[in-house]
Amino acid sequence: MSLHGLDALARAIGEAAIVADPAQLAARRHDYWALSHLRDHVGRPAPVPGVLVRPTGVAQVQEVVRFAAERRVALIPFGLGSGVVGGVIASPDAILLDLSELKRVRFIDATNLMAGFDAGHNGLAAEEAVAAQGLTIGHWPQSVAVSSVGGWVATRASGQLSTGYGNIEDILHTVEAVLPNGELVTLGKGPRASAGPDLRQLMLGSEGALGVITGVVVSLRRQPEAKAFSCFEAPDMRTGFELQREIVQRGWRPPVMRQYDARESRRQDGDATGCLLLMAHEGPAGLVAAETAAVRDLAAAAAAPERPGEIVARWFSHRNVVPSWDTLLSRGLVVDTVEVSAGWTDIGAVYDDAVAALKGIDGLIAGSAHSSHVYRSGLNLYFTFAVQTTDPDQMEPAYLEGWRRILDATARHGGSISHHHGIGRVRRDWLAGEIGPSGVALLRKIKSALDPQGIMNPGVLIPDA
Amino acid sequence: MSLHGLDALARAIGEAAIVADPAQLAARRHDYWALSHLRDHVGRPAPVPGVLVRPTGVAQVQEVVRFAAERRVALIPFGLGSGVVGGVIASPDAILLDLSELKRVRFIDATNLMAGFDAGHNGLAAEEAVAAQGLTIGHWPQSVAVSSVGGWVATRASGQLSTGYGNIEDILHTVEAVLPNGELVTLGKGPRASAGPDLRQLMLGSEGALGVITGVVVSLRRQPEAKAFSCFEAPDMRTGFELQREIVQRGWRPPVMRQYDARESRRQDGDATGCLLLMAHEGPAGLVAAETAAVRDLAAAAAAPERPGEIVARWFSHRNVVPSWDTLLSRGLVVDTVEVSAGWTDIGAVYDDAVAALKGIDGLIAGSAHSSHVYRSGLNLYFTFAVQTTDPDQMEPAYLEGWRRILDATARHGGSISHHHGIGRVRRDWLAGEIGPSGVALLRKIKSALDPQGIMNPGVLIPDA
Repeated sequence: MSLHGLDALARAIGEAAIVADPAQLAARRHDYWALSHLRDHVGRPAPVPGVLVRPTGVAQVQEVVRFAAERRVALIPFGLGSGVVGGVIASPDAILLDLSELKRVRFIDATNLMAGFDAGHNGLAAEEAVAAQGLTIGHWPQSVAVSSVGGWVATRASGQLSTGYGNIEDILHTVEAVLPNGELVTLGKGPRASAGPDLRQLMLGSEGALGVITGVVVSLRRQPEAKAFSCFEAPDMRTGFELQREIVQRGWRPPVMRQYDARESRRQDGDATGCLLLMAHEGPAGLVAAETAAVRDLAAAAAAPERPGEIVARWFSHRNVVPSWDTLLSRGLVVDTVEVSAGWTDIGAVYDDAVAALKGIDGLIAGSAHSSHVYRSGLNLYFTFAVQTTDPDQMEPAYLEGWRRILDATARHGGSISHHHGIGRVRRDWLAGEIGPSGVALLRKIKSALDPQGIMNPGVLIPDA
Repeated sequence: MSLHGLDALARAIGEAAIVADPAQLAARRHDYWALSHLRDHVGRPAPVPGVLVRPTGVAQVQEVVRFAAERRVALIPFGLGSGVVGGVIASPDAILLDLSELKRVRFIDATNLMAGFDAGHNGLAAEEAVAAQGLTIGHWPQSVAVSSVGGWVATRASGQLSTGYGNIEDILHTVEAVLPNGELVTLGKGPRASAGPDLRQLMLGSEGALGVITGVVVSLRRQPEAKAFSCFEAPDMRTGFELQREIVQRGWRPPVMRQYDARESRRQDGDATGCLLLMAHEGPAGLVAAETAAVRDLAAAAAAPERPGEIVARWFSHRNVVPSWDTLLSRGLVVDTVEVSAGWTDIGAVYDDAVAALKGIDGLIAGSAHSSHVYRSGLNLYFTFAVQTTDPDQMEPAYLEGWRRILDATARHGGSISHHHGIGRVRRDWLAGEIGPSGVALLRKIKSALDPQGIMNPGVLIPDA
C-alpha cells in the first residue's frame, strides 16, 4: 500500500493500531498450516503482509473494513493463528487484520449460562474465566490454548468433548460480526428462535470470507457433578465402530469417545494389540453411574475387554501436546492430520481405503487413524500420515498426495471431506463434490451479495469459478 | 394468468398437474392462520389462487419455478396448510404450488438412523413409517397429523419432545430444494461437516421465500427402551421456572417439560391450585431411572409436591386436539396462541407483563400461558388469549391487539418474538427488533441474491423496505 494510503488508514483507526515491527509482520505471514511451514522450510516462504493492523475495539474493525471496501483492498482476518488448512496466507497487496487485541471478557451470566467475549479472546483463558465460577464452555479443541473464540466460529470447530457437548454451532448463542460493507450485525436471540433462516450460520465456517467476527456469546454448562473414565479394547476397527454405534444409538452420549486403530493404540498403551476405545463420562452422578454400567455391558457383549481407565487419564493429560512442524521437517518428515466424517455403513470402508491408498505414497512411514466425534448417524475419522524424504522438491508433492488420497477415499464412500478444520486452501478442490456444483453456485451468490468486491480473505473456501 | 400462459404451463408440467376444480382452489386460499379464518368469518375472505398446480415429482417443481421466474409470476409454496402465522395467502396474480402429492418415502436406513421423504409427506405418516421399524423421528409438533415434513423445515418447527430430542434444525440431516432460478440443491452431507457455512440453514425458516423444499432427510432415533412420566405442582410460575432451570442445568433433559400457569393447570387437572409441571422421560432404562429419581429430589427441594403421573398420560392422549376456528368464531370468540422465548432471568417478567397487558383488551376472557421447550439458557412461553365480541368490526383489531401486546412485552425483556411458528405476516413488524435493522438488511441481501425478481412467496417473513 502506498504511503498515502497508509496515512489515510492511520487517520481512520489511529497510528497505534498499525504495526510496523518487522518481526511481528513476519509472524503474521501465515497460520499453523503444515504446507505453509513446509514451504518456509524449503525456502519458499509466505509473503509478509503489506499492512498489519491490530485494532482494540469493534469500531476500529468497522473502520478498517470500510477503508478496505472503499479502496478495494483485500482484507485478511487473523485470529490467533492456529488454523491448519491454509485459511490465512498474507499478501503484500492485502491488509492483515490481527484480532488478538480484541480480547475482553464482556460478561459471564451464571443464571442464563452464557458468556460473551471479544472474538480474539484466547480459548483457554475464556474457559478458565468461566471455570472460576464453576462453569464450562465445554469446547475443547486440541488448539484450545492457542486459538480464539472467534476462530472457533469462523472455522466451525469441534472440541474433544463434542459427542456429549456438541460442536461450536451447538454452543454458539450469539455472533457479532462486521459485514464486508462495514455494517455491524448481532445475530442470535433468545434461547431459540423461528424468525427466518438462522443468519448466525453464515458466520459459522465463514473462514474470513464473509465478514469479520468481532464478538461471540457462548452457551455454558455447569461443571459436571461427576466424572468417570472407561476403556475397552476391540479386536479390530469395525468391531469398535459397531460398539460405538450401539452405545450412541441406545441413547448414551459420553462427552469423549475415541477409538484408535492398532497402530495408534500402541502409542496410547504399549500393551495394546487391538483397537482401544477411550471414553469419558460426565454429568449428574446418577447419569454417569448408569452410563458407565451400560457401556461396560455393551462392551462385554461386543467381546471388547475392559482396560484400565488410567489409559484415558493419560490421554487427558497429554492430549494437547503437538510437535512443531519445524522439528518434524528438520528430520525430513512430512506429517499432517486430516479429519473427515462418514455414516456408520461407510466408515469402515473409508478407513480401509484411505489407509491402503496412503501406502502407495513413496516414503510413507505411517498412515493411521482414530475416531473422536460420534453422532447417531455416523462418526469422524482423524487420519495421520507421515512421509520421510530428504529431497526438498519431494516434500510438497508428498504432502498434497497424502491429502488427496484421504479425501478421495472419503468422497468415494459418500463421506464429508471436512469434519471440523474447515476448507481453507487445501480442500477447495473437493468442495464441489461435497455440496454439489449448485451448492458452490449458491455459496458464490451469497459471497457476491455480501462482498461484491471480493475483498474478504480471497483465495479461501470457495473454489475459483 | 392468461389462457396463453396457462397453456404454456400445461405444456411444461403436464395438464394433469394443473388443478381446475373450484372447491380445491377455494381450499388452497390460505393455511390455518386464525386471522385469515377470521376474515372469512366477517366476509373478507382470502382470494382464490390464480393458478393451482400440484406436481408429483421434483422435476415438475423445477419446471414450475422456471416458468414463474421467466414470466415474473409470484409463486406460493403450499405444504399441508397447517401454518398459523399467515405464511400462505393465495393471490389471483400468483401460482399456488401445492406440494401435497410430493409424498414418497424415499428410504429408511435403520443402521445410519436416517430416513428420506418427499417434502409433502405427511408428518404422522412419516413417523409411522419409521415406527414400523422400531425407530422414531422424535419430532412431534401439535400439527403432526396435518403438517408435512417439508413444512417442518420451512417454518423451523419444534416438536413437543424437543427438550430431549431437539428442534427441527437438530433433526434435519439433508434438505433438497429448488432455488428461485430453478436449480436443484441438495445440502447436508456426512454426520457433520465443516465445509463453509451450513447452507441447509437458508431453507430452515425460509417460509417459501427463498426456494421450494422438495425433499428432506431426517436423523432418526431408536424407540426408547423405557418411558416414564412425572408431575409436580409448583406454588407459582417463578418457582416452577427455577425448578426447570435446576433440572436442565444439572444435565437432565426430559424430552417433555411443560409448565402450566394456574389457569391452564386447572384445565389439565381439576384439583390443581398451583402450576403443574409435566415431564416425560425416555431413553435407556438406567437413564430414565436416574432422571426420574433426580427430578423427584429437585422438586422436593423446591417445595413442589408430586402429583399423579396420570396427569401427564392424559395430556399425551389429548395433546393434539384443537378446536376449529369456525366453531370459536361462531361463538364470537377471537382466540389465538403466541409462542415466544426468553432467558431464565427474563421469562418471569415476560409472563407477568404479557398477561397483565392482555387484561387491558376490551372483552378479554382469557390470557394464560405454559412453557413447553426448555434450554440451558432459558425456555419458551406459549400464550393463549381469547377475546369475546359480537361486533364483527372489533374482531380483527382485537386479534391484532392480542398479538401486539404479547410480542411487545417479549421484546421489552429481550426475548425472541417467535419460538417455533415462524414470522409469516403476523410478526413481520417485529423482525427488525429481533435481528436488528442490519440483520434485516442482511436477510434482504440474501433474498435478492437468490430471488432477484422477488417471485417467491412475496409478503412473508421480510418486512417491506
